[in-house]
Amino acid sequence: MRKVASSTPLLLTVDASSAEPLFRQIYQGIREGILSGRLRVGERVPSTRLLAGELGVARSTVVLAYEHLVAEGYVTAATSVGSFVADNLPDVSPLPAGVRSITPVPAGPRVVAARVREAERVSLGTPTVRRWPVPFRVGEPALDAFPTAIWETLRRRRARRRPRAMLGYGSHGGFPPLREAIATYLGASRGVRVRAEQVLLVRGAQQAIDLVARTLLDPGCDVWVEDPGYLAVRAAFLTSGARLVPVPVDEEGLDVAVGRALAPHARMAYVAPSNQFPLGVTMSLPRRLALLDWAAHAGAWVVEDDYDSDFRYAGRPITALQGLDTSQRVIYVGTFSKTLFPALRLGYLAVPPDLVDAFDRVQQLADFVSPTVEQAVVADFLSEGHFARHVRRMRALYQERQAALHDTLRRELSGLARADVHESGMHLVAWLDSDADDAAVSRAALDAKVEVPPLSLYCLERRLPPALLMGYAAVPAAQSGRAARLLRGVLERRARARA
Amino acid sequence: MRKVASSTPLLLTVDASSAEPLFRQIYQGIREGILSGRLRVGERVPSTRLLAGELGVARSTVVLAYEHLVAEGYVTAATSVGSFVADNLPDVSPLPAGVRSITPVPAGPRVVAARVREAERVSLGTPTVRRWPVPFRVGEPALDAFPTAIWETLRRRRARRRPRAMLGYGSHGGFPPLREAIATYLGASRGVRVRAEQVLLVRGAQQAIDLVARTLLDPGCDVWVEDPGYLAVRAAFLTSGARLVPVPVDEEGLDVAVGRALAPHARMAYVAPSNQFPLGVTMSLPRRLALLDWAAHAGAWVVEDDYDSDFRYAGRPITALQGLDTSQRVIYVGTFSKTLFPALRLGYLAVPPDLVDAFDRVQQLADFVSPTVEQAVVADFLSEGHFARHVRRMRALYQERQAALHDTLRRELSGLARADVHESGMHLVAWLDSDADDAAVSRAALDAKVEVPPLSLYCLERRLPPALLMGYAAVPAAQSGRAARLLRGVLERRARARA
Repeated sequence: MRKVASSTPLLLTVDASSAEPLFRQIYQGIREGILSGRLRVGERVPSTRLLAGELGVARSTVVLAYEHLVAEGYVTAATSVGSFVADNLPDVSPLPAGVRSITPVPAGPRVVAARVREAERVSLGTPTVRRWPVPFRVGEPALDAFPTAIWETLRRRRARRRPRAMLGYGSHGGFPPLREAIATYLGASRGVRVRAEQVLLVRGAQQAIDLVARTLLDPGCDVWVEDPGYLAVRAAFLTSGARLVPVPVDEEGLDVAVGRALAPHARMAYVAPSNQFPLGVTMSLPRRLALLDWAAHAGAWVVEDDYDSDFRYAGRPITALQGLDTSQRVIYVGTFSKTLFPALRLGYLAVPPDLVDAFDRVQQLADFVSPTVEQAVVADFLSEGHFARHVRRMRALYQERQAALHDTLRRELSGLARADVHESGMHLVAWLDSDADDAAVSRAALDAKVEVPPLSLYCLERRLPPALLMGYAAVPAAQSGRAARLLRGVLERRARARA
Repeated sequence: MRKVASSTPLLLTVDASSAEPLFRQIYQGIREGILSGRLRVGERVPSTRLLAGELGVARSTVVLAYEHLVAEGYVTAATSVGSFVADNLPDVSPLPAGVRSITPVPAGPRVVAARVREAERVSLGTPTVRRWPVPFRVGEPALDAFPTAIWETLRRRRARRRPRAMLGYGSHGGFPPLREAIATYLGASRGVRVRAEQVLLVRGAQQAIDLVARTLLDPGCDVWVEDPGYLAVRAAFLTSGARLVPVPVDEEGLDVAVGRALAPHARMAYVAPSNQFPLGVTMSLPRRLALLDWAAHAGAWVVEDDYDSDFRYAGRPITALQGLDTSQRVIYVGTFSKTLFPALRLGYLAVPPDLVDAFDRVQQLADFVSPTVEQAVVADFLSEGHFARHVRRMRALYQERQAALHDTLRRELSGLARADVHESGMHLVAWLDSDADDAAVSRAALDAKVEVPPLSLYCLERRLPPALLMGYAAVPAAQSGRAARLLRGVLERRARARA
């Protein structure tokens, strides 16, 4: 229903059935009246009471519209004689709603940093738009199983208690009780030996790796990276100007002897020893000791990415490299993106005591990590036992889902792909026929809305047999069968085309 | 009250009056029993019912403790015959609570990146620990006036609606409706002409500047910076290897002619034209046009830092440089740290259309900015009018507080310091006697718990008269008088010492 104001030359109309809130319609009507000159500078605008009556809307609605107009400088604040069109109007050219005029980009040099081109050399392996959920996407946790009710209860409790205490900048490095809780948790569950001061909160594993690169790498220095290995890590190292030294991964993890032969004086080695990405290998104890021994003698750093160490289904829990290190050479990286939820954007670094200041310095350049209510909630989640319980539940669920996917592959993709059971992690590696092109299969699968990145994507110099990565943590058993059949269709069509 | 379990060789005791939660006492007691060998591998642990009865605690408390023990691998999950000490114990050496043994840092090369040393050359000007509130701290908004009730209401509404939809990674760049709302807001209130796709959400102005540096600067290239100017910006530019070209600021803002003379081919100019930090100057229109003209002809970028443009108390609202630019050379930086609250860690960049991909790429290396509930709440805050109303209230409050501080200075610091009224911003510049050492005064004031950074801290090559920066936005009038008297004591003691 449309109502028209009669008291003024505004020709103001409002439409209660419109999706646009009433106050915005009033605000826009008066603003347009002013900008078009229908309401002149110094002219009195109708009182809120009068206009509300004419338009048949609540007076508070008109008040809100006027508050906007006053805030933006179109109308003077109300006095006893009323409100007026301001005499110093905002010198803003009004842009028609919806159609903003964008200046075209003129010709001429438009120079960006060389490191942008470096970064473009490496695929990040992340889709630009992540719809939710897509079957088999790698690295997505089971968000449908997240205990949002408990989370919201804890959050309400924190928000009620001293509601404004956690709005400010606070100490950087993060909420001190959370740093303490993480140090305790890492000590008890991973054998990591750190004090709370060595724990720095960051925005997830990627920011952790980026800070490592910026704090420890110089242009031209060598860094061992796992081959195959995680992509975004490489891009972060490359943009620091470092040279990547691909070191092969076998069933015992990164081959330290090869690394020593290729680049004995590297500045750093990056490893994911608990659960290597993408192969899912656990680094053996002799290799761990060899890596630490090399680092101690070479004066090198070891970055231990422990991004999903909590999801281990068999074998003994593995002590972190950090806990075996007697030379304070290990920078430990962890994240809550997998164990809690990605949008939390919370991870952490545990760094040697003598590097705390350097990391802190570099982090301040990039991003103040203020204590927030969310950090307090995570601290409560950890210290009140919710975290351990949730991880235990997810471990059981993911183990079930891995078994379900394994069965599904045997049933639906027999003869086309085969996967081994993994002892840990959130994805399986499905090996294809040796003459298959895994990148082409992956692209065809994406067209069928199944996201299964090819193993070859993660290889630098290695030539491994073709395979697809299949994440299962976020895929319920029911969905898994349907998606596997879609993938079978893709594989069969390609096999027929080859035959 | 202390209770002892009698059924087991655990010698488990709990103390209800302890600050440690009961479940943790039980967890720790059993864990210590296992690690010390009092409970042997394969041994049955008491049922939760039995132990709860003996200790006089709720059974759920014991269940929670056992869940922890199971989650960490000390105890097997309960079956019909009970729970047992696990036979594959975590191979974690128990660290005594509170006293974690940290390996000392051995001798040997411990090489960090050269850019860390670059960054250390420039003070960041931020205190390591920001207690709240400290009188006259610069850049702190009035958090006591933040409408937390409205915020929490909006947040509850968003959290209720599709509670798990916003837990995942999502599209980077930020929550699309918020990018849209920011583009609309910037168009209406600042004359910035951008589409939502050009708006990238970041963690605040500092991350915005850091992304600008990493995306657009190369080692050795020149960057104009304001002298005096904001410190953390310089450090971000230096760590990208750029050379800083200090350009003096006068009453019309950055002196473009001097910049042209010093470094005509600079890659970039950084300015805060609405409200220069720390002098509070507004850049004149002729200077704005001269800067844009230089950038267009030199093929340079202009970074427009509009960090607190909403707090303008007199004069016409100023159109952003971005809105005057016809060459798509301006990168616009904004933040919600001042208008909403710092711990939100939300700012934004509006970049030329042809730079969107490069910025996006660099941002992904550093930090995925996932859509979160908080981003949705800010979108609602903007589109439902709460933002405009809050900014208007704060503008009135800050204007009052500026006037109060100005009066206080006249009353309490007469003859020792004098300040002009500023048309905008959140601090005043209090000029001292020409022979005063502002850095020394600032240090002495900090001992008296008054934080007033010296103007000289922000100068690169300029020698300006001595002055102190005094933030007023977060300082109620009552507190202002007391703090000013503390500062008077400091100034009088120093004047007597000089005499």
